[in-house]
Amino acid sequence: MINSMAAKHAVWPKEDDAIFGLAAKAQQAIKKYGKDKVIDSTLGALADDDGNLICMKAVYDELKSMPNENIAAYALVAGQPDYLDAVQEACFKEYRPEAYIKAVATPGGTGSVRHTIYNYTNSGDSVLVSDWYWKPYVTISEEYGRKVDFYNLFNDKNEFNIKSFRESFEKLLNKQKRLVAIINSPAQNPTGYSLSDDEWKQVIDLMVENAKDKENRIILLVDAAYIDFAGKGNERRKFFKQFSNLPENILVVIGYSLSKGYTMYGMRLGAAIGISSSKDIAEEFYYSCAHSNRANWSNCNRGAMEVMTRISNDPKKSEAYEAEKAIYKNMLHKRAEAFVKASEDAGLEILPYRDGFFVSIPCDNAKAISDKLMEDNLFLIPLKKGLRFAVCAVSEEKCKKAPKMIKSIMDNIQKEK
Amino acid sequence: MINSMAAKHAVWPKEDDAIFGLAAKAQQAIKKYGKDKVIDSTLGALADDDGNLICMKAVYDELKSMPNENIAAYALVAGQPDYLDAVQEACFKEYRPEAYIKAVATPGGTGSVRHTIYNYTNSGDSVLVSDWYWKPYVTISEEYGRKVDFYNLFNDKNEFNIKSFRESFEKLLNKQKRLVAIINSPAQNPTGYSLSDDEWKQVIDLMVENAKDKENRIILLVDAAYIDFAGKGNERRKFFKQFSNLPENILVVIGYSLSKGYTMYGMRLGAAIGISSSKDIAEEFYYSCAHSNRANWSNCNRGAMEVMTRISNDPKKSEAYEAEKAIYKNMLHKRAEAFVKASEDAGLEILPYRDGFFVSIPCDNAKAISDKLMEDNLFLIPLKKGLRFAVCAVSEEKCKKAPKMIKSIMDNIQKEK
Repeated sequence: MINSMAAKHAVWPKEDDAIFGLAAKAQQAIKKYGKDKVIDSTLGALADDDGNLICMKAVYDELKSMPNENIAAYALVAGQPDYLDAVQEACFKEYRPEAYIKAVATPGGTGSVRHTIYNYTNSGDSVLVSDWYWKPYVTISEEYGRKVDFYNLFNDKNEFNIKSFRESFEKLLNKQKRLVAIINSPAQNPTGYSLSDDEWKQVIDLMVENAKDKENRIILLVDAAYIDFAGKGNERRKFFKQFSNLPENILVVIGYSLSKGYTMYGMRLGAAIGISSSKDIAEEFYYSCAHSNRANWSNCNRGAMEVMTRISNDPKKSEAYEAEKAIYKNMLHKRAEAFVKASEDAGLEILPYRDGFFVSIPCDNAKAISDKLMEDNLFLIPLKKGLRFAVCAVSEEKCKKAPKMIKSIMDNIQKEK
Repeated sequence: MINSMAAKHAVWPKEDDAIFGLAAKAQQAIKKYGKDKVIDSTLGALADDDGNLICMKAVYDELKSMPNENIAAYALVAGQPDYLDAVQEACFKEYRPEAYIKAVATPGGTGSVRHTIYNYTNSGDSVLVSDWYWKPYVTISEEYGRKVDFYNLFNDKNEFNIKSFRESFEKLLNKQKRLVAIINSPAQNPTGYSLSDDEWKQVIDLMVENAKDKENRIILLVDAAYIDFAGKGNERRKFFKQFSNLPENILVVIGYSLSKGYTMYGMRLGAAIGISSSKDIAEEFYYSCAHSNRANWSNCNRGAMEVMTRISNDPKKSEAYEAEKAIYKNMLHKRAEAFVKASEDAGLEILPYRDGFFVSIPCDNAKAISDKLMEDNLFLIPLKKGLRFAVCAVSEEKCKKAPKMIKSIMDNIQKEK
C-alpha cells in the first residue's frame, strides 16, 4: 500500500472549504423554511433584500453585447495595456502617488497576494498579518513554506494598534532583513475596519524609519479588495498619496480586485499594482509578476478586462456604472448602520466597523455560538477570535434583528458554563 | 541606489513574450500590405480563412443567454461538481480508465501543469520534457526552482523515441526516486505528433517496470490540451484505457483545457484530472490541487464552467456543439494536409505531423530564417530546434504556398554560409 504520492510540502488535510459548507447549510434551511425565516450571512458577496446575488447591469450588459472575439482571445501575459492603465485609474482616482507604478493583471485579488508573498519572501520567512484576517493569507503562505506572524489589529481603544504592528514589524525585519507586511484596508475582511489617514501616516513613518538601514527590504501589501465599497466619494483613497517618494527599499503593492466593485467575483480579475521611487524596482516588480503569471495561469480573463476598459473609457458608460454602484454602496451603508445600531441596543459588543461587507463580533467560543445560531436559522462564519456577519448579504430589516439573536445565544452559552 | 527588492528566486530577465511580439509585427504587416499579402502563422488559435479568430457559436450563444448570476458568482474552490463530472466525460468519452479519478478546475491547461510540477516534485528536482516542447514547461519549472531534462522526442525513423525516453526516465528516477514526466499528446505543440497506442503501451510498460521498486514515485503528466482537434472521432482517446489498474505508485494526471476545444482561450478554464488505482492517492491529489487553487487564484471562471456544463448536459446543445466543432476540425485537417503535401512537393523536411494546431520544421538557424521570412511577410515562430508553423491560423490556400517560401529562404541562407 502506497500512502502518498505528493511531495511532502503539498500534502494537506482532506478538508473542504468551511465557508461554502455553511453557505450550503443556509441554502438547505431556506428551502425548508422559506427565505423570510432564514438569515444567511455566510458568503462575501452583495445580495439584494431577497438574498439574490446582485449583478451590476452596467457590467453584464457590456459583457453580453461585446463581440465574441473580445472574450475568446488570449490576453497578453501581463494583461492588456489599456486594462493596466484603466485599473490604475480605477484604483487611485485623484490620489495617484508620485512614484513609478506598474500593474500586472491577476485572477482577483488572490493572485496579487500570491505574487507578493511568493516573489518577495524567501522559503521559511514569516509574513506579517493582523490577528483578524482573511484566511487565504495563511493558505498562500503555507503553500509556499512561508510562516505567518500576527500583530494585534486593535488596541484597547479600538484603534489601529500601531504599537503591536511596530513590535512585530521590527522583530521580523531585524531577523529576516526582508518583510512582507499585509494591511487589509479600507473595509477590512472580516472586521470592516479602515485605517484613518493619520494611522496610515504612522505606518509609513515606521517603514521610513526602518528603511534607513539600506540592507532592509520592506514590502507593504495593501489589500484593497473592498475599496469600491468604502467611504464617501473617494475619501478612502486619500492615503494612496502617502506612498509618494518613499525610500527605494520600500515597495508598496496594492492588491486590487474587480470582484466586488464590478460584481465580477466569478470572472476572476484583479491586479497587482507596484509603487516604487525607483524605475528599476518598479520594472523588476512587473517582470517578476509577469513571469509568475506565465508560470501559474498564463494570462487572465480577457473578457473581464475588456468590460472594465470599455466602461472606464466611455464617459456615459462610466457614469451609468458609477450611478449603479452608488445605489449598492448606499444600500450596504444602511444595512451596516442598522446592524451597528441594533448591536448597541442589544448590548452586543462588535469591533469598530467603518466600511465594507463584514462586521465582526469578538468572542471566545465562536464555533459553539455559530452552531446554536444555526438552530435559529441564523448562519454566519465562526473565526478563531469571533464571528463574522456579512451585512453585504442580508437585508436591512434582518440586520436589525440579528444582533439581538446573537447576543441572546451568547448569553445562554455563557450561563451554561 | 537599491538594485533589487524581489527575492533572488523571483528576479527574471526584463523580456516580453516573444510570440506576442511576433504576432504584433504580423498585425502591422497586415495593416500595411493587406490581409492577402501576409501569412500570419504566429498565434496558436483557430482563425478563419480571413485570419479572424473563430469563436464557436454554441459556446458564446450559451454564455450570452445565461443568467448573469451564473457568471457573477464565485465558483467552489475545486470547481463546481457538475463541471468536474462534465469535464471528465469530455476528456475520456468512452475510454475512461478503470481507476479512481478526481478532477480539479484550473485556469486553462497551464494551471494543471503548474499543480503537477509544484505538488509532485521537490525543489531542485528535474522534470522530464521532450526536446521539442511548449516553453511554459520550463517557465513553470524555473519559477519553482525545478530543472528540466530533455529526452529526444523522435528516433531516426521519426517515431516516438522510447529509447531516449527510457534512458532519461530511469536516470532521473533512480536519482530522485520521484519523477514528473510530461508527454504532450495527442497533437503535440509544436510538432503535431501524437503517440500511437502502441507507443503509449511502451511508455506504460516502462513505468510499470520501474514501479516494481515501491520507493519510486512515478507521475506521468499527459498534456492533452489539443485533444479535441485530434484524430477521427474519438480514436485519439483510446490510450486513456491503458491507464486502468496501474500500480499504486504511478499517478497519471491529464492536463485538460477548454481553450481550444471550446474556443475559450481568454476565459481560462481547464482541469487537472488525476488517475490512480488507490482511492487515497486520488483524494490526496484532489486536496493537494484544491489547496493550490485556493493559494494561487482562489477559484476558476464560473461562467466558463456553466457554459461547458450546460452544453454537455443538454443533448441538443451538445449535438450542435459537436457539429460545429466537426466543421473546424475538418477545416484544420485540410489545412494541415495541404501543408504536409506542399512540403513534400517543395522538398521541405518537416517533423511527423499527426494532429492539431502546429507543424514543425527542423533547422539549425531558426531565428535567421524567421527574420528573413518576415521580409516576405511570412510570420512564424522560431524555436531552439526549428520553426513552428500554426496551420490553425492560416487558410488552406496559404498553407499550400508557405512550404515553398520557407524552403527557398532556408536554401538561400544555406548557400550564403
